[in-house]
Amino acid sequence: MGPEDSQLGMERRSGVALWRQVADRIRHGIGGGTLGDGHKLPPEIWLSEHFGVNRHTVRAAIAALVQEGVLRAEQGRGTFIESRKRLAYPISARTRFSTGMQHQTRDRRGILLGHQQEEASARVAEALALEPGAAVLRLETVSEADGRRVGRATGWFDAVRFPGFEKAYAETGSITLSFARFGVNDYLRRSTLVSARHADTDDLENLKLSPGAIVLVAIAINDDLEGRPIQFAETRFAADLVELTVET
Amino acid sequence: MGPEDSQLGMERRSGVALWRQVADRIRHGIGGGTLGDGHKLPPEIWLSEHFGVNRHTVRAAIAALVQEGVLRAEQGRGTFIESRKRLAYPISARTRFSTGMQHQTRDRRGILLGHQQEEASARVAEALALEPGAAVLRLETVSEADGRRVGRATGWFDAVRFPGFEKAYAETGSITLSFARFGVNDYLRRSTLVSARHADTDDLENLKLSPGAIVLVAIAINDDLEGRPIQFAETRFAADLVELTVET
Repeated sequence: MGPEDSQLGMERRSGVALWRQVADRIRHGIGGGTLGDGHKLPPEIWLSEHFGVNRHTVRAAIAALVQEGVLRAEQGRGTFIESRKRLAYPISARTRFSTGMQHQTRDRRGILLGHQQEEASARVAEALALEPGAAVLRLETVSEADGRRVGRATGWFDAVRFPGFEKAYAETGSITLSFARFGVNDYLRRSTLVSARHADTDDLENLKLSPGAIVLVAIAINDDLEGRPIQFAETRFAADLVELTVET
Repeated sequence: MGPEDSQLGMERRSGVALWRQVADRIRHGIGGGTLGDGHKLPPEIWLSEHFGVNRHTVRAAIAALVQEGVLRAEQGRGTFIESRKRLAYPISARTRFSTGMQHQTRDRRGILLGHQQEEASARVAEALALEPGAAVLRLETVSEADGRRVGRATGWFDAVRFPGFEKAYAETGSITLSFARFGVNDYLRRSTLVSARHADTDDLENLKLSPGAIVLVAIAINDDLEGRPIQFAETRFAADLVELTVET
């Protein structure tokens, strides 16, 4: 039992190393505006006293957050907070990644990681109003905004109605532009289910997250203007980068 | 370096103990329906091989999930998955905790943890369309559904328009019924901002979560029918218990 047993709010035997707990606190303090002035992180010695941990622990926490891009260390000047105001992704009847992000970012693009034609599972069939086992196209994609990976999506489409949708997406980098190639010039968001969980191995790799990171999960159905479902998708957003806004 | 270095997807030196990573995987596997049959967890030996960790690690992970209420151990029979279908909390123009949950739960109630009259910060003043420094009433509350703590909220109200709102809430356990006492018989959700983060000390204590847990954060403004803001609130939902549904 060391002196660190006395520190406020830290949990020994929680299965989470002290430096990782301190890193989470620093991240949270920065996000909530209660730590630092929005530009510079307080000195190590202050953080060490504030969290009641030794300076090695503080240094390990800072190093992890630097690697993650939350902090930036400048030799001889101190540690700076990267401006990471979250992107606000609007959920509305006209939810589109590109237009939703266009006033907040300079450029946005979707990248096709892979695609597969498969038989619709019960869940996918129900969402797309198809028979279970019907041919559907699954697209695995990543959305980037200003070079940062913000979302990782798995989307399903009716393979009969949208043959070669993956080629359209690979060329345009946009679901909206891909639908337009099939004569669907407008579509409406029917429903969105939002939850949160720890990032899994795929999220960590494709969203370039560090272990312990959180993803916001949005499961959505889009309909064409006749009310027929055209897309069922599950998108994992990096919770440190994205928040969802709902206007009602 | 032990044999555990070879296990798939587990991160050594991540600052998160192996048993905690395994617990997160089991939780995730249960939630996604990829682990267990929805009733019973696979045997320890299977989990040990599946995750490439020793049985002590599996046991520690199971013990943590039992403590959290995700799993239930029955002597001689095995380990069972508690049915924890997430509650779907609808975000719409008429978002109300009690009606939103009424078809999914037997009883719901709000508990007043504390209250304070204070001067509106710039953020609270803007949300409530008051001058900064105006008198506002802050309520700290917890919402229970069937005895489970699902949400922890901090709400601000105009102290001049709603004097004694805290007493109304303590008596009724409902924001809607409290507003009715002040002649506000209907109100509309203007906007909701949804994000996710790790549970902080307050969340852990008041939502009875275990370290590493995630909260879904909803920051919302409610207006009366004249369009005047009457409530600004930040609610932290236990992400393992609640998901948000958005109809658009």
